[in-house]
Amino acid sequence: MYRNNEGNNSKLKIIPLGGLEQIGMNITVFEYEDSIVVVDCGLSFPDDDMLGVDLVIPDITYLADNIEKVKGFVITHGHEDHIGALPYILKDINVPVYATRLTKGLIDRKLEEHNLKESCQVIQTEFGKTKAITLGQFRIEFIRTNHSIVDAAALAISSPAGIVVHTGDFKVDYTPVYGDSINLQRFAELGKKGVLALMCDSTNADRPGFTQSEKTVGKTINSIFADHEDRRIIIATFASNVDRVQQIINSAYKYGRKVVLEGRSMGNIIETAQNLGCIQIPENTIIPVESLKDYAPEKTVIITTGSQGESMAALSRMASDTHRKISIDSNDLIIFSSHPIPGNEKPVTKSINALLAKGAEVIFQDAHVSGHACQEEIKLIYTLVHPKYAIPVHGEYKHLIAQRQLVEELGMVKKKDSFILSSGDVLELDKDSAAITGRVQVQPVLVDGLGIGDVGNAVLRDRQVLSENGIVMAFLALDSNMGELAAEPQIITRGFIYVRESDDIMQEMLELLISTTEELCEKGITDIPRMRNALRDALSNYIWKKMNRRPMIMPIIMEV
Amino acid sequence: MYRNNEGNNSKLKIIPLGGLEQIGMNITVFEYEDSIVVVDCGLSFPDDDMLGVDLVIPDITYLADNIEKVKGFVITHGHEDHIGALPYILKDINVPVYATRLTKGLIDRKLEEHNLKESCQVIQTEFGKTKAITLGQFRIEFIRTNHSIVDAAALAISSPAGIVVHTGDFKVDYTPVYGDSINLQRFAELGKKGVLALMCDSTNADRPGFTQSEKTVGKTINSIFADHEDRRIIIATFASNVDRVQQIINSAYKYGRKVVLEGRSMGNIIETAQNLGCIQIPENTIIPVESLKDYAPEKTVIITTGSQGESMAALSRMASDTHRKISIDSNDLIIFSSHPIPGNEKPVTKSINALLAKGAEVIFQDAHVSGHACQEEIKLIYTLVHPKYAIPVHGEYKHLIAQRQLVEELGMVKKKDSFILSSGDVLELDKDSAAITGRVQVQPVLVDGLGIGDVGNAVLRDRQVLSENGIVMAFLALDSNMGELAAEPQIITRGFIYVRESDDIMQEMLELLISTTEELCEKGITDIPRMRNALRDALSNYIWKKMNRRPMIMPIIMEV
Repeated sequence: MYRNNEGNNSKLKIIPLGGLEQIGMNITVFEYEDSIVVVDCGLSFPDDDMLGVDLVIPDITYLADNIEKVKGFVITHGHEDHIGALPYILKDINVPVYATRLTKGLIDRKLEEHNLKESCQVIQTEFGKTKAITLGQFRIEFIRTNHSIVDAAALAISSPAGIVVHTGDFKVDYTPVYGDSINLQRFAELGKKGVLALMCDSTNADRPGFTQSEKTVGKTINSIFADHEDRRIIIATFASNVDRVQQIINSAYKYGRKVVLEGRSMGNIIETAQNLGCIQIPENTIIPVESLKDYAPEKTVIITTGSQGESMAALSRMASDTHRKISIDSNDLIIFSSHPIPGNEKPVTKSINALLAKGAEVIFQDAHVSGHACQEEIKLIYTLVHPKYAIPVHGEYKHLIAQRQLVEELGMVKKKDSFILSSGDVLELDKDSAAITGRVQVQPVLVDGLGIGDVGNAVLRDRQVLSENGIVMAFLALDSNMGELAAEPQIITRGFIYVRESDDIMQEMLELLISTTEELCEKGITDIPRMRNALRDALSNYIWKKMNRRPMIMPIIMEV
Repeated sequence: MYRNNEGNNSKLKIIPLGGLEQIGMNITVFEYEDSIVVVDCGLSFPDDDMLGVDLVIPDITYLADNIEKVKGFVITHGHEDHIGALPYILKDINVPVYATRLTKGLIDRKLEEHNLKESCQVIQTEFGKTKAITLGQFRIEFIRTNHSIVDAAALAISSPAGIVVHTGDFKVDYTPVYGDSINLQRFAELGKKGVLALMCDSTNADRPGFTQSEKTVGKTINSIFADHEDRRIIIATFASNVDRVQQIINSAYKYGRKVVLEGRSMGNIIETAQNLGCIQIPENTIIPVESLKDYAPEKTVIITTGSQGESMAALSRMASDTHRKISIDSNDLIIFSSHPIPGNEKPVTKSINALLAKGAEVIFQDAHVSGHACQEEIKLIYTLVHPKYAIPVHGEYKHLIAQRQLVEELGMVKKKDSFILSSGDVLELDKDSAAITGRVQVQPVLVDGLGIGDVGNAVLRDRQVLSENGIVMAFLALDSNMGELAAEPQIITRGFIYVRESDDIMQEMLELLISTTEELCEKGITDIPRMRNALRDALSNYIWKKMNRRPMIMPIIMEV
């Protein structure tokens, strides 16, 4: 039971296990005495130097070491960077997961795909003070917010040390497409009562002003439909932005068009949203892609994945002529209802250029609004909540800094009470003081195929070398009795240069291999590691001098 | 001698050998009967999928096949995407190169680095009608423009078929930092006389309005200096933007600061510019980096490379603590006087975050203007030149399309007379008609280390596989008389997974290798290619089943 023991002098610990150094992989530990709750459990996508890695999940060593304390995961909303690691982590930390309706729906689908539906427990929560849940010494209330996905929640996390408000990803939308506006009154009420710390979304903390309502996009899309009644329309957007899809469907219905949902995640998420009543689709509006041919093109809309130029997504396949069912022509209007996520500018532009080259018209501006709070919204939340401590979260370092700057300008939180944490920091706080008192292990875990954590830095370094210069393999069979070569050595290269057997370079490397081996044998140096090093050095020097390259060199010596 | 034979009915050919499908690698052939001149000779940087490639240069097969016609290269300005391939191409196509002062200076330095100074001829040209040069049947006039580098030129290329105006990269700057404003009167004069075709910079064709004067950046920098008299200032910008460096030096001088030039290209280019009188540096203003310690930090400015987050550039090394002479602290103000070039957003942000994390203040907005014409400037040039044909150049496909759209709106050039070319297209034109009549070979040439063209698609495909999943090498020594293994096989992996010898997977692969070999020998299958395929299949299937990965598999069999 939740104990409100005012006299208690234990501190609350807040330990982010991810999400601070990179966009994504949000996961934060809240610990009070014998109780731990974990907010979110997201994945991130690999950095450019993590060659061949599919995704990255957090290091949960700290949770495993304190498993008896862990009461559950509480999830703010259903984006991959907040729920994506659950199927991996729940295998080790099997505790209940608490989430609002659509968030639970998306987690359920994910667990099903990983065959974990039976073994894991996901519990649906409701918004509001009276629906708060108790987990050990914590009480957690879900507060409605607005974001680019339905059913997003902020959390009021109460413990004997005080109340922490965590906004999750949010914006203030006074005219949301579905459901209610963010519960500003509740933020104010909590602020009035007294809030220890505010953990607030920083993603747009460097943008002045107020993020526009999702409804403004609906108006834009409507007017694009009105202006292009003679063309097929293809709209790329995020599958998880259910409100966006709702508005596109509204426009399609208004202008008498049938709708095709293209891309695996688009179909999946909208199906889940529809089952849960988060989206209203008029009957006979959705048609399967196979039925496109039965309608005049200008009477159809295709809502598709691929707004980020992802190479395997439906729109990218249309752009590169590898989509089996849809091909682009000059009668198509393509709308990117999205902005490129930082780092995706190049693939998005590549898609746009390819679509233009097919004669299609492409609109890639003004058909999107952000899901994150800008500066005025952040100031509003701080002013309502009036926390003692500020802990900017979500966003890159430059955004965290920008939020701290904003908070300073508000003059509400003292500079020493504003904390920019790194993943792994242990922040201990109560109403009297707050300080970083330690660190826990946070080594991101790389997932490659079915392997979790079996690709580490050494493997990545090798992949880097291989990717830049390829590999030169040299094989020798050594007659260990005679101390001489048992057969002609072989040299094989891959990813190095285009070589023909007749090339000088192959011949010269072979001769170098033989002469170096003979020299070694003459000197009586026949222990394999020493021979291997000598051969590697000889080939490496030769290649560097000849062509300024450093392929991986693998001399392999077999004694027969 | 230039012949103005009006009655002649030969057509002019315009053949871009690069620069249309990608940003960079600008090179365009102009051919009239027995004469060819080539405009620019640039390089481009490798796409993300060109692993390990250092740079890309154009395919000059067409020039080599028509070498007796080629009269020379004429160069618009000294950026890498316009001059960078010269040292490679001049080895095969050794004809004179014509360029204005700073452009020539930068080419000379480049040829010197490649030990080509003696064998190649670079001739300095002057701006103006009277200084036009004659190359075979062409007369070429250099017209002053403004751009983010000094001495940029547009070209008026006259042949018996008519005059083509090529803007190069340009903007209209009424108040340039150095030298005169773009020679608009000359564009007008040519337009009055009659221009066959305009090839106009499209880079900013999707941006409304007018690009601001370079001088506005000077004002911004001045006011930043005024606001930060107590801090060391580090400014990252493009080394080739001599006017930018000039303005920073002006501010430094005004505020009594010494200047350090950091980064190899920064030192080189500014030295060249200074020798040619393109930049005025007050005496005792520049100090070597070693002397920084002799001055109070707030009395110094460091102008550095690295504005694009290039990993080896000086600023990036400061950010990652690997610069041997400069380290960043909370007293530093760092200014990015640049915008990220598309595709560089992520490395630039990484730099910014790393610098912020060291406590430095970072300004990355508003201290830059573009060097390219926006929509109003493009309309101005079209209106002055009033060409019969429009051939948008420079920029991605979406920018070429945007320029064509602008030209249509002007109502000056008929839609059928507006050409968006692809590299390799042969456009034939005269005053009566224009059409694409053929194609020439344009296969970009990859440069890797000292190798030119020895890395092709097969090598890149191998590098891709190696980078994603690494390599599994399996060695067998086969006793060919006995038809059996002569020694225990070996398996070695690189970039695959972190393996210990004791791992199940290594043991299982080894057993699979032995059993498969024995089966093959029992069946009497001992020809090496068949054995190799069978072993590759066996290992490949095992690994895919076990871990959903596809490393490169190299079984190597040696007969002893």
